[in-house]
Amino acid sequence: MTTTDNSAADSIPNVLAERYASPALKAIWSPSGRIAIERDFWIAVMKAQRDLGVAIPAKAIADYERVKNNINLASIAARERVTLHDVKARIEEFSDLAGHEFIHLGLTSRDLTENVEQLQIQRSLAVVRMKTAAALLALAKQARAHRALMITGRTHNVPAQPTTLGKRIAMFGQELLFAFTRLEELCARYPARGLKGAVGTQLDQLTLLGGDAKKVARLEARVVKHLGFRTAFNAVGQVYPRSLDFDVVSALHQVAAAAASFATTLRLMAGQGLLTEGFQKGQVGSSAMPHKVNARNCERVCGFATIISGYVTMTGALAGHQWNEGDVSCSVVRRIALPDAFYAIDGLLETYLTILRQMNVFPAAIAAENTRNLPFLATTTILMEAVKAGAGRETAHEAIKEHALAAANAMRTGGGDPDLVGRLAGDARLRLTRAKLESILGESARFVGAAPQQVDVFVAGAKRAAAKVKGASTYQPGKLL
Amino acid sequence: MTTTDNSAADSIPNVLAERYASPALKAIWSPSGRIAIERDFWIAVMKAQRDLGVAIPAKAIADYERVKNNINLASIAARERVTLHDVKARIEEFSDLAGHEFIHLGLTSRDLTENVEQLQIQRSLAVVRMKTAAALLALAKQARAHRALMITGRTHNVPAQPTTLGKRIAMFGQELLFAFTRLEELCARYPARGLKGAVGTQLDQLTLLGGDAKKVARLEARVVKHLGFRTAFNAVGQVYPRSLDFDVVSALHQVAAAAASFATTLRLMAGQGLLTEGFQKGQVGSSAMPHKVNARNCERVCGFATIISGYVTMTGALAGHQWNEGDVSCSVVRRIALPDAFYAIDGLLETYLTILRQMNVFPAAIAAENTRNLPFLATTTILMEAVKAGAGRETAHEAIKEHALAAANAMRTGGGDPDLVGRLAGDARLRLTRAKLESILGESARFVGAAPQQVDVFVAGAKRAAAKVKGASTYQPGKLL
Amino acid sequence: MTTTDNSAADSIPNVLAERYASPALKAIWSPSGRIAIERDFWIAVMKAQRDLGVAIPAKAIADYERVKNNINLASIAARERVTLHDVKARIEEFSDLAGHEFIHLGLTSRDLTENVEQLQIQRSLAVVRMKTAAALLALAKQARAHRALMITGRTHNVPAQPTTLGKRIAMFGQELLFAFTRLEELCARYPARGLKGAVGTQLDQLTLLGGDAKKVARLEARVVKHLGFRTAFNAVGQVYPRSLDFDVVSALHQVAAAAASFATTLRLMAGQGLLTEGFQKGQVGSSAMPHKVNARNCERVCGFATIISGYVTMTGALAGHQWNEGDVSCSVVRRIALPDAFYAIDGLLETYLTILRQMNVFPAAIAAENTRNLPFLATTTILMEAVKAGAGRETAHEAIKEHALAAANAMRTGGGDPDLVGRLAGDARLRLTRAKLESILGESARFVGAAPQQVDVFVAGAKRAAAKVKGASTYQPGKLL
Amino acid sequence: MTTTDNSAADSIPNVLAERYASPALKAIWSPSGRIAIERDFWIAVMKAQRDLGVAIPAKAIADYERVKNNINLASIAARERVTLHDVKARIEEFSDLAGHEFIHLGLTSRDLTENVEQLQIQRSLAVVRMKTAAALLALAKQARAHRALMITGRTHNVPAQPTTLGKRIAMFGQELLFAFTRLEELCARYPARGLKGAVGTQLDQLTLLGGDAKKVARLEARVVKHLGFRTAFNAVGQVYPRSLDFDVVSALHQVAAAAASFATTLRLMAGQGLLTEGFQKGQVGSSAMPHKVNARNCERVCGFATIISGYVTMTGALAGHQWNEGDVSCSVVRRIALPDAFYAIDGLLETYLTILRQMNVFPAAIAAENTRNLPFLATTTILMEAVKAGAGRETAHEAIKEHALAAANAMRTGGGDPDLVGRLAGDARLRLTRAKLESILGESARFVGAAPQQVDVFVAGAKRAAAKVKGASTYQPGKLL
Repeated sequence: MTTTDNSAADSIPNVLAERYASPALKAIWSPSGRIAIERDFWIAVMKAQRDLGVAIPAKAIADYERVKNNINLASIAARERVTLHDVKARIEEFSDLAGHEFIHLGLTSRDLTENVEQLQIQRSLAVVRMKTAAALLALAKQARAHRALMITGRTHNVPAQPTTLGKRIAMFGQELLFAFTRLEELCARYPARGLKGAVGTQLDQLTLLGGDAKKVARLEARVVKHLGFRTAFNAVGQVYPRSLDFDVVSALHQVAAAAASFATTLRLMAGQGLLTEGFQKGQVGSSAMPHKVNARNCERVCGFATIISGYVTMTGALAGHQWNEGDVSCSVVRRIALPDAFYAIDGLLETYLTILRQMNVFPAAIAAENTRNLPFLATTTILMEAVKAGAGRETAHEAIKEHALAAANAMRTGGGDPDLVGRLAGDARLRLTRAKLESILGESARFVGAAPQQVDVFVAGAKRAAAKVKGASTYQPGKLL
Repeated sequence: MTTTDNSAADSIPNVLAERYASPALKAIWSPSGRIAIERDFWIAVMKAQRDLGVAIPAKAIADYERVKNNINLASIAARERVTLHDVKARIEEFSDLAGHEFIHLGLTSRDLTENVEQLQIQRSLAVVRMKTAAALLALAKQARAHRALMITGRTHNVPAQPTTLGKRIAMFGQELLFAFTRLEELCARYPARGLKGAVGTQLDQLTLLGGDAKKVARLEARVVKHLGFRTAFNAVGQVYPRSLDFDVVSALHQVAAAAASFATTLRLMAGQGLLTEGFQKGQVGSSAMPHKVNARNCERVCGFATIISGYVTMTGALAGHQWNEGDVSCSVVRRIALPDAFYAIDGLLETYLTILRQMNVFPAAIAAENTRNLPFLATTTILMEAVKAGAGRETAHEAIKEHALAAANAMRTGGGDPDLVGRLAGDARLRLTRAKLESILGESARFVGAAPQQVDVFVAGAKRAAAKVKGASTYQPGKLL
Repeated sequence: MTTTDNSAADSIPNVLAERYASPALKAIWSPSGRIAIERDFWIAVMKAQRDLGVAIPAKAIADYERVKNNINLASIAARERVTLHDVKARIEEFSDLAGHEFIHLGLTSRDLTENVEQLQIQRSLAVVRMKTAAALLALAKQARAHRALMITGRTHNVPAQPTTLGKRIAMFGQELLFAFTRLEELCARYPARGLKGAVGTQLDQLTLLGGDAKKVARLEARVVKHLGFRTAFNAVGQVYPRSLDFDVVSALHQVAAAAASFATTLRLMAGQGLLTEGFQKGQVGSSAMPHKVNARNCERVCGFATIISGYVTMTGALAGHQWNEGDVSCSVVRRIALPDAFYAIDGLLETYLTILRQMNVFPAAIAAENTRNLPFLATTTILMEAVKAGAGRETAHEAIKEHALAAANAMRTGGGDPDLVGRLAGDARLRLTRAKLESILGESARFVGAAPQQVDVFVAGAKRAAAKVKGASTYQPGKLL
Repeated sequence: MTTTDNSAADSIPNVLAERYASPALKAIWSPSGRIAIERDFWIAVMKAQRDLGVAIPAKAIADYERVKNNINLASIAARERVTLHDVKARIEEFSDLAGHEFIHLGLTSRDLTENVEQLQIQRSLAVVRMKTAAALLALAKQARAHRALMITGRTHNVPAQPTTLGKRIAMFGQELLFAFTRLEELCARYPARGLKGAVGTQLDQLTLLGGDAKKVARLEARVVKHLGFRTAFNAVGQVYPRSLDFDVVSALHQVAAAAASFATTLRLMAGQGLLTEGFQKGQVGSSAMPHKVNARNCERVCGFATIISGYVTMTGALAGHQWNEGDVSCSVVRRIALPDAFYAIDGLLETYLTILRQMNVFPAAIAAENTRNLPFLATTTILMEAVKAGAGRETAHEAIKEHALAAANAMRTGGGDPDLVGRLAGDARLRLTRAKLESILGESARFVGAAPQQVDVFVAGAKRAAAKVKGASTYQPGKLL
């Protein structure tokens, strides 16, 4: 193909990262971001080894620190084409820059890569945690704003009983809050693999430190602390157990699920004309049909959740398949599934937060829907009033059922007002006048039951959860593509 | 088909339950077991309603209690064929037996079924937790028994460095311990749906209790406590968030993964002739080949893990797809995925515990494998001794590499003893005599590094974890089919 | 638990089979159904072996045939508790009944079980194929009935352009037709494993038939023909490749997907009040709200599709994990995933066919929705007429956009009639009178484009496909629970 | 982060594409590759529209053709940041370059994107088909080369009966051949969506072509032919049925499964020291242990299969979830799952072909394993010879079983030669001398049964299949990273 000045044309970008993920997430997983983490790791190991008696000159460590931000991806790639070994290429590059050969002493490749990848995971989880907390606050705000706005509650997607818009939002907020708790527990318990050597016995570090097990323990403890982990695995092999990755990705799926349930319901409500997910400034819905306001961001949220379910499958399939001390049948999978799952959840949360800020509610349309459905939604209450007025319960039930079915049928087949109230008022069995019936319907505010109070409880819970998370209350999502 | 006295022939059993699950699990999910839980639930609701002022006679409650164990599945099934409504059939049966109509007041079907199913889940989780703790103890026992038994550590399935059998067992124990912690956290946080009504607003209970929100709260709290839950959801709809089911089943998959990794490695070791998973008394390996001792229970464990991954997919696909306040697109899925996932993990744990009790280690075969591989496994140690003896590091490395590759090649192509020690002793660059080399190899005990100490740490951790779980230390698996 | 006369209480039924599957499917997979197939298989092998010179008396074969329908599950189960080997128990039972020992000569267990299970699969596929063809005919009938009934086409779940109800039905029919074709191809190519022995080399049959490879080939060919397969694998091991099971279950998922997309759209349309899935005679929607007609069968169809996706995961996880000539890590998975996937697709098709027969369309409600949306749906056509009338294209586009957005906004915020036609007629830039605009809208029949013709093409295709399938045109689904 | 001249550092590459996929695959899915396909599509539509009477000047078409290879990604990206609409940005870029506005007449975005993506899929399938055929040929070559090389056949991963290495290779070849057939059928039936408009009714093309349905049909037929499809869907909506994507990705998974089963068995054989997957020139196995030859490419193949299973889940989750005529909840998923699934299968096939060319068999090690296991593998044959020599069958069976178990036990616990032959020769019940027994074992060549002949059949089938595929016989995989 002849292209003009298009040297990058053959380079295939990671779509999840480039179209959807935020700079914060990309920085963690970018090629240069990873190298920066690795170099910090090597330096931390050197410092600890030196303190424990390994002969590494302070000058060497200083020289490594001086050049650590000098990251030249092209140079490293050129080295890899020679060595056919990615870790080796990065060791050589860093050591040549520093003019020493003191990094990676007594380490295997996995001592580096497992811990660095776990650090990427841990940092990514922190981003997800913060944005989930921000979403909880945004949900709380919307739930509060529509705390008592009565809407037509639907089960089986057809009108059932009244609820409030705030309660419906809180309902999905409740699901997110539960996922948030799981995320918190995971973050708290997530252990580093530590420095364990080729088959996990720490033989090489023991040899390096003169067979002194206590020194090895102190070395590992310092490195684990440097990485920011609270704890490390004790008895692992070349690799940490892959069910840990499944734990991480399945936790992300729970966060995604709460958002996707919310988005699905918004898509349904948009189809009823009750709200839209809102527009960004300058956005066009459709070039052909100018009145269209598609819930495309909500659709996108659902799509992200589907994507994450695929990474659940991938990491779930790795779990349980360890052979002996380990191998690399997992490497290519983790190289894809872990960053991509985080890009996807990050894109989802950015989109979700945008929707929560922009969504546009149409109270008039909501009121019209309630009016259309209200007599039906109130049949159980009317039943009780009829009984109070002296009607037999079963007689009243039968009467209401007859009229409700006839009215529904009239509405469906003839269009127009089915006048259920009129039908009921005209039936002597019920002993209720039209005035009385209208007064019952007039008190419809109480049909929402405990919905407003449930909103309050949710709002308090969401705030309590988010208060622990730095940055959540001020976070603003980026501009979506 | 003509069959003799085979009326049950057309009844299709649940294979997971009938072939693999334990009586404890089956009792929770059996048709009659479920009805027993439902009836207890209804009685608890009646008692609480009566105490809060609903006009339910004490005599009626006593009559319900008197007949609650009178469970006649055939009678209920006959009723369902008339009503076409399963909950209604069970209400009628129970009320007819008692001679009253006071159960299910102000409840929707989901108020019953959601809570009852959650109780089944909660009880099943307790069984899984207990057996997982029992497995941790069994792993600890095996790890301790083989704490220092040196074996050929393998990465990429080929010999790498020595480890111990105890360490290898502890490694998979470590994975299980991590899964156990997640299970504990889940059990601690698992909330009941509570009494929420058709769209989650508690409207009907509010109406029943005269609009008194505090009474409704007390009613729900009592019922939740009766069920044995520590907490209940606040703002849910007709259904609790389905991502909770995904949380449960994905936690089971983590337990399964630890067992499957262990089982996979046992299958590999059996293929090397190092151990067998053991026989049950009277068992025959193969009618044709009497020497065969197949690791079929280990294979079965792997199969159970695969099965559970399918239920992860099912429950993962429900999560995120809630429409408004809910519907029954989840019902048929949960009816299958939840009990079957528990039958599968129960079958897995029964099998796993059996393997852990019966496995048969062959130290002579293990020693023979070590002998075959030992000089190779020690090359890094030999390198350091050569350097100590005055050889240049890079010179020594190159020399060892040449001989190791030649020896490996000789072994593969010619069979017979490749005599790596002789090759190394004969190379002046290394400055090591055969006697010196053999003395290094003679100290091979230390090649296992920190493996024995890691076993000790694991054993202590496993015991600490299991000590909290009643029944774990004495549990014996049932006889496998 | 104390129960009255409830001996079957502890027996756990397979819910998919017992609640949802048809007798035809259950007969294939029931314990006695399987034994009947096995016995026919053994007899077929004996007959072929005898014809090829193995010394089996004709009398013995006759005796086996005489007792083959004497299937006593309890007796077989008692034998298995002794032998701990299911195949052995069934051999002994059959041979004891016949009074001979001539079955299973030169066979391994897998020679029996693999082929028998494939026969169950093949027969189940035939049932699925027939019911899929019946569904195509039912879709064709509904599409034809509503061939030209204009409805509001929706993309992103909001009104877009007109289409017809028949076209919307045909659209999902098109998807099913495509899945049907894949199913046909699979049935045509599905091969038996054949008689291959323990590791696939046919050693034991070769030995039995005096080393005569041609006789072995003839034996296998006869058995394959008896089973009704067109072809057999050549080079397999103890097991046939497990990716074949994945091929089967993923084909079922495609059938399920077409039905689930249809069901999902019906659930959406029910939410708009445009149709219902219909009632069975005597069915009650909700005891509390008599006007409710829930699309619960449609929800169930979606649930079945989710279930099958879990079996896709299970069989997908087996594929690619064969170790050498095979083992039984697949057995427990296949024992569950294969029958249960077929029960699920069978339950889905029964439900789908019921919906297609019972669905209830409300043309008045559909017309009302069209009226509400029509001016918007016609904006592109109005644009062209304005241009014909002399307006500039961009000027006209801008004018229409302004009015459409304003009208949509009025509708959402104020309720009531947004009068888009009036707004357009009042704008001189468009040069269109109200009369002209109404005449354009009056010709709305043509807005459905090629929809009716597409229905015709689909109907012809569906009939052509179904014509090949015996029984499809007369099949009636059973009564749903 | 401070980096030196690292402007590309923040750009995240698609790892599957950049590390593993071949240039042929990348060219199909690269940003510029896609734009090239789109422009060809627009030009084809213009030409057909002009021929059918739409007023498009020939000069305009020529101008578009002149600039079609002038692809400037940066310019297009800049436009998208303004319009927030990717298709619109690409329309403007192309039209500005040409100096006309005649592309995309009467098309919706999906008319472009659906067909273009299907073309990418179709071309990718052709690449996969060709490389699968190449793999079949490579398998045939290896199977033939080791047609009669006896190896120890294993079931349950332990020695069972003899087979040949060629047969074992053919066994996995058989699985691939079956997947290849499915792939062929899929390619043959894969239909284009065609030009269908916003809701699938072709309204806009009908309007453009004066309501002439025949002209619309001819327009679509020409475009479908331009794209290289044999057929098009008839009745679809905005989107083609998403179960088609599932059909594609699940077919890829079947190809992957055959390769992964082969790779898994190679990893097992490498663990027994029987072969290696081979080295690339200059490759180093492990920097620490120079004798290690890890089966890392085989492990990678297994990893790719796991990855593809995740895309099976993603596309499987889209199937069955269409809402009405369609929306974009699928877009973000397909944008990831489709190209990435193809990159993964392409990387898998490149790796697989490399292994098949480089694998290194060690006949001496294989022979040693046979010798170790042979007496056990021959027990069924010995049994028959004992019977021929006059022993009772059951007596002989019991005798052999005793000795086999004792010998196996001796081997496991004592190491050394268990001398099964000596034990059997010393038992008078068997009536077989040591000389006779050794003569039986000496004829061990026939123990492989029909294995060599099965290889021949496979080789012929593989060649027949590959012969239809251009380029398969000469294809060489690229160099792996």
